[in-house]
Parts: sequence; structure tokens; C-alpha cells
Amino acid sequence: SAIRVGILTVSDTSSSKPKADRSGPLLRDTLAAVGWNVVDTAITSDDPKQISKALLKWTDIEELDVIVTTGGTGFGVRDNTPEVVKSLLDKDAPGITHLLMSTSLKYTPFAALSRPVCGVRGKSIILTLPGSPKACKENIECVLDILPHAVELTRGGSGSGLHNKM
Amino acid sequence: SAIRVGILTVSDTSSSKPKADRSGPLLRDTLAAVGWNVVDTAITSDDPKQISKALLKWTDIEELDVIVTTGGTGFGVRDNTPEVVKSLLDKDAPGITHLLMSTSLKYTPFAALSRPVCGVRGKSIILTLPGSPKACKENIECVLDILPHAVELTRGGSGSGLHNKM
Amino acid sequence: SAIRVGILTVSDTSSSKPKADRSGPLLRDTLAAVGWNVVDTAITSDDPKQISKALLKWTDIEELDVIVTTGGTGFGVRDNTPEVVKSLLDKDAPGITHLLMSTSLKYTPFAALSRPVCGVRGKSIILTLPGSPKACKENIECVLDILPHAVELTRGGSGSGLHNKM
Ligand code: NA
Repeated sequence: SAIRVGILTVSDTSSSKPKADRSGPLLRDTLAAVGWNVVDTAITSDDPKQISKALLKWTDIEELDVIVTTGGTGFGVRDNTPEVVKSLLDKDAPGITHLLMSTSLKYTPFAALSRPVCGVRGKSIILTLPGSPKACKENIECVLDILPHAVELTRGGSGSGLHNKM
Repeated sequence: SAIRVGILTVSDTSSSKPKADRSGPLLRDTLAAVGWNVVDTAITSDDPKQISKALLKWTDIEELDVIVTTGGTGFGVRDNTPEVVKSLLDKDAPGITHLLMSTSLKYTPFAALSRPVCGVRGKSIILTLPGSPKACKENIECVLDILPHAVELTRGGSGSGLHNKM
Repeated sequence: SAIRVGILTVSDTSSSKPKADRSGPLLRDTLAAVGWNVVDTAITSDDPKQISKALLKWTDIEELDVIVTTGGTGFGVRDNTPEVVKSLLDKDAPGITHLLMSTSLKYTPFAALSRPVCGVRGKSIILTLPGSPKACKENIECVLDILPHAVELTRGGSGSGLHNKM
């Protein structure tokens, strides 16, 4: 069945002015276009408690397959997304982080100023993308082919097809 | 003296049917061929306690120079190897993890679905490789030249030769 | 205003024989040449308490913008710099670590034997570079353009210029 995904925009600006959010809609359109089921989208401020509450609803109650955040991953005083996500993860996924970062660095060395964290909580795979729409697009495109295989495994599948690809 | 190495296959399947294990023997042959002393090999299930017990024997009692695990690094519900290894490490070795991942990603983006952890416990360097024989081979080959220098240092050497290479 | 930077050489050898330190002066000259304000330099032994004390003075009291360490990042028994830095960080900066490592690995696979950690404590960005002068030079040069943008953000700026570059 289609991958159930939630998209969380984390931004003080967008939470008070939703129309300012360009990355959330861009991620939604990109994922819908490849047949994923975008179950929910939300915008929170950079407040850690708000971020955590939104994520826990999607991981522990709705058990979404994939959660993609955008924003709050930089060096700003209010950039807390990676710290919140890290505190919630059962398992790190440093390979996905590596792929995101390698891909972004091909475009610009400024990608190094993102602080991505990827991993698994319960049945949900969580990815933290930067706030910039352009960086979001580059990041999500480089994982579109591989995430369905990860989801098959977190759903309890054998991943037998995957071994042949590796 | 020759590098003393242990090879641990982590797999529910192989632990009940040892002949199914292709990666363990492949790693053993590869390392023996370059003159390493393969002191021990073992197979455990994906049960964290079994993994931990096997590793602690090799790190804390036998003080092997290098321990290579294969399997249990993916997104499956029973994939626990990185979490067990992480809990045992004194020091992370993110540079080795980076090299493994960069190398694997040259072959396939699906390599991003491995979750490698490398580091040091006591006198032992531990590397977690994927379960796929092909990925194992690519991963071990890219560290064959560098690990002897790391071992020289964990054995208490000065590493003076290494500085000239960096 | 100019970026305020501290440079810490971590080395048992250099702490008893300061003239042996080539990486500290090289980093000082490189950063001064691009207009950074090198506020302080220091040499400590590999003792964790000495490293920690030197860093805390620069982060918590002097609130330097950037702290660069050199040395103590390898596999030696006395190599503790990454562990000390990690214990002090509020936020990880894995993107910078990735950029440092990718750059170093272009020169030599032995770069994988460094164990870099980058991140933020309070208002200070901390980078751990290897002890080798050559590796130090390669590492610092690859972050010269991006760190000013990170500093703008840790100082409380909006980073609006940065978004356009990403
Ligand atoms: Na890379």
C-alpha cells in the first residue's frame, strides 16, 4: 500500500504566517506526484515542545511510515529541530544522513551548515531537511527511490529484494 | 605481529542455518588472504544480548585488535547491531564510517539504508558491515590499508608513520 | 565585526615543548590572513581535564565565535579531544564534519583515521582538526567561506543571505 507520510514545517515565521511556507507545499507536491499518500501536513514554531508534540502524534498515534521535517536545522539560536528529533529516535540512520549531505554538498558548500538527523522511531522513519525550498527539493529527490525499501522493512518485511540491490 | 581479528555474523537465519552465512566466510577469506590472523568467527541471532555477549568476549577478554560484524544494520524490526555496538564503544570513529559509506554509495544509493557504526572499545576496533556479501566485500576492501595504522595506535604505538601520510 | 577565534593545540609533546607545535601557528597565520581576529592560542596536553578547562574558558567566559582544536583526534590511547568536545556541545554540526571528512578523503584514505566532531556550545562553534599540519590546512581552508555565515547565525542574525545560497 502507498507510503503514508507527514510533512512538518518548523519555522517561527511560517507558524504565524502560513502563506510564507514554501517548502512544506513543495514537499507535499513532490511526494504526491510519485504516489505517496500525504496523510497530514503541519506547521509549528521553532519551540521544542511544539515540534515534539507534532512528531509524537505522527509516530506514536498515527504510526506514519515517513515523516519529513523542513526547517530549524541551521545554526540559529532558535534552530532546534535536530535536537528534538534525536531525542525521539530509537535508531539512527547515518547512511541516509550521509546521502543527503553528499548530495547537497555537490550543489554548494553552504549545505554543510545544515545539521541533518535521520532515523527511526517505532514504525516511522524521520528525516530532517533544511528550510530552503531548493535544498528541500534536492534532498527529497535523492531519497525517493530508497525510502520505499526502508519502509518495507520497518513494516516488518524481509527486504529480500533489497539485498540483491546492495 | 599479525592483526588479530574476529568476525561476527549477526543473522536470525544464519544462526539457525550456519550454511546460509556467505558474508562471514567471505570476510574470513579476504582478511586471511592479506595476512591477518582470523582468531575466531561466530554467528549469533539478532538478539541484542547474544550480540553483546559475543562482542564483549572478543573485546574485554581476548582483546582482539579488530572485530568485524556483518548483518543486522538495516531498517528491519530485528536489526539491532548498530545500537548494541554503539552502547559498547569508548570512542566513535566517524571517519571510518564516512569512508565505508562514501565507498558503498559509489556502487548504489541503496547503501544509504545501512546504518554503520565504527569505533573503539578498550584495545579493539569494531566495524559494523552490512549483511550483503557484495557490500561486505566493498566495505572491507576500502579499509584494508588504513586499519593496520589504527591498530598500531590502539596497541600504544606513536603513529609517527601515519602523520606523514596525512 | 571580525570573527573572534581561539586556537587550541592538544598534544602531550607540544605541551612540554611548545616549539614542536607547527599546526597551531599555521592555523593562526591562515585565519589572520583572511581577517579573522585570533584572540588567543593555547597548548594543552592530551589530558581531558586540561582540554576541557581551556575550551570552557573560551566558550563560557570569553564567548569566542569559533574555536579550532588541532590534535588528539586519532586512535592513540591518549587521543581524547573528540570525546571532550562532544561532552561540551549543545548542538552537533554533522554537516561541517561531513565537509571536513569528504575534503580530507580526497587527499588520502588515511584521513578516515581522524575522528572529527563539530558543533556549538553557547555562542561558540567548535571544530576538531587533526594534528597533522597538512591535514589542518586542508580542513581549515574548506570551511573558511562557510563559517562566517554560521557565526552570523550563532550571534543571533537572521541568516537571510544564507538561504539564498542554499
Ligand atoms: Na562524501
